[in-house]
Amino acid sequence: MGHEVRAVEWRDGRLWLLDQRLLPGQEAFLEPTSAADVARAITDMVVRGAPAIGITAAYGVVLAAAQRQGEDPGAWRARVERALDLLGRARPTAVNLVWALTRMRRRLDSCSAEPTEWLLEEALRIHEEDIAANRRMGELGANLLRPGTCVLTHCNTGALATGGYGTALGVVRSGYRSGRIEQIYADETRPWLQGARLTAWELLREGIPLQLIVDGAAPYLMSLGRVQWVIVGADRITANGDVANKIGTYGLAVAARHHGVRFMVVAPASTVDMGLASGAEIPIEARDGAEIRWVGEQQIAPAEVAAWNPVFDITPAGLIDVIVTERGVVEEPDAAGMRRLMATG
Amino acid sequence: MGHEVRAVEWRDGRLWLLDQRLLPGQEAFLEPTSAADVARAITDMVVRGAPAIGITAAYGVVLAAAQRQGEDPGAWRARVERALDLLGRARPTAVNLVWALTRMRRRLDSCSAEPTEWLLEEALRIHEEDIAANRRMGELGANLLRPGTCVLTHCNTGALATGGYGTALGVVRSGYRSGRIEQIYADETRPWLQGARLTAWELLREGIPLQLIVDGAAPYLMSLGRVQWVIVGADRITANGDVANKIGTYGLAVAARHHGVRFMVVAPASTVDMGLASGAEIPIEARDGAEIRWVGEQQIAPAEVAAWNPVFDITPAGLIDVIVTERGVVEEPDAAGMRRLMATG
Repeated sequence: MGHEVRAVEWRDGRLWLLDQRLLPGQEAFLEPTSAADVARAITDMVVRGAPAIGITAAYGVVLAAAQRQGEDPGAWRARVERALDLLGRARPTAVNLVWALTRMRRRLDSCSAEPTEWLLEEALRIHEEDIAANRRMGELGANLLRPGTCVLTHCNTGALATGGYGTALGVVRSGYRSGRIEQIYADETRPWLQGARLTAWELLREGIPLQLIVDGAAPYLMSLGRVQWVIVGADRITANGDVANKIGTYGLAVAARHHGVRFMVVAPASTVDMGLASGAEIPIEARDGAEIRWVGEQQIAPAEVAAWNPVFDITPAGLIDVIVTERGVVEEPDAAGMRRLMATG
Repeated sequence: MGHEVRAVEWRDGRLWLLDQRLLPGQEAFLEPTSAADVARAITDMVVRGAPAIGITAAYGVVLAAAQRQGEDPGAWRARVERALDLLGRARPTAVNLVWALTRMRRRLDSCSAEPTEWLLEEALRIHEEDIAANRRMGELGANLLRPGTCVLTHCNTGALATGGYGTALGVVRSGYRSGRIEQIYADETRPWLQGARLTAWELLREGIPLQLIVDGAAPYLMSLGRVQWVIVGADRITANGDVANKIGTYGLAVAARHHGVRFMVVAPASTVDMGLASGAEIPIEARDGAEIRWVGEQQIAPAEVAAWNPVFDITPAGLIDVIVTERGVVEEPDAAGMRRLMATG
């Protein structure tokens, strides 16, 4: 079993981000030194994955507090406020970003002077809690699987998408180690290919048996009876149990229901947004069509062709069999179940 | 409106194949001179699309007959027989290949000497009939659409996939020209990206409004109510109306049914294989996993990762609203409807 990678790390007073755009070809790290650097790294997808984005943004707030060269020391609070605003706009769909920044803002409000260490404590706590939540979810989710289960997953929800260990891929790790999971199928997940580039890379390092497929092959795989569960992450879960996740997730849920394949969503409680009644209220990020026309340096479609590039889609609660968080499991999620879950912990 | 491209052409006693692997970056032609060259071009996907494969193979038989340098003239029949066998094994799923070679074999059987011109007449007839069939299907299919229709299509089923004009894309051409179609959405269609590379290229040349999407976005597009019809081609249709077509088609049919979007399959009668009772009997080609790990010159997944690469999937007749052939239209296809259709013409 390989050493588990960290996508985001605070080490020796510096923030290190693994540049996930270069994987699996190259393992290179960026060292952002300002909140603006961090916001850009999030927007440009150096770091991605809802929990990892939240953790990274929290560290971005710490960098804003630490950045005080040639500036009136009394100005730090305004500077940190600006950083909170800037980081909050880096990407729209994942609510973990807002959640982490809300925690940092609360921490800021209780701080009178020398904010850097004070804020860093909170950022490190957010990071550690995420890893602990992932391990707990890994156990809870794996316990739902029978021995010999084959799983289809989408996008990357592993160590690279989180503080460490992973959400859906945390369940895969726990399920494989406990002998319940036999085989993983991973969608390549166009357009960013997080499945091909990142999930494949993570699972190879751990020796977990994986077959990569194109996104369009998933329903055919189900029709052949080769998978019993689809397990995915989430970028936002609303009060009724609707889920925003990587584009393609919704189609997997429709196909899973058609085939009697079970559908599990794994995400920390920080992904749950009880302020939104349903998925229809979630802002869905649309990115540049060039992300579809190009794969890395390779142009694959005529430059003049229009492309529609929504990054996420909405899976209604009615198509989800179970939502797993570190606070517990909600089967057949609905508003009452989500309320009960969020009232605990 | 641009001049319609030809993927396969017999000109001045020679066969010309547009190398579709290089599109849209480059328009280059190959000139195969033997049946072995032609078989290789089909296997390697220089030419693809069920009807185009059949036509190309027919010309391959002509090349075998013409190739007589330094050889006993009496040996031509054995040589053409070998070519028929070789070409028949070039790809397994599309039945048009078998159909075209069966016609060429019948033609061969009625030939006593000087086979080249005799066989060429039949190959040219197969080619011309395909174009005429496409135009007829274009009309029949477009007549099923209401004005203002938005269509989702998959893979490439246009001039490049056929003798000319196209099957599903023939309906798109006719529907757009007659004012019934307003907007096309095209799946990029991994792993070969026929939608991004070929359909986009063809529709841009004709000025038909197109939005390219990743395959995983199709169900979300349907959930937003943006398309009323999915229109696709076929590589083989069995006696009960089941359809083998490009991987991803089946998932579109499942999603279309879930959303009340209508589902049309467009293919010439040469695609219908009344010898197979159902889709379960169709041989599904699986190609090398490297086609998933690489996009052109760009590696996108670790070299060591296993990939499952079925090229086609099976859509059961029960998920299809209508099959359009040049012989007529079968609504809610089943064994009786297919029998009636094939008894005509």
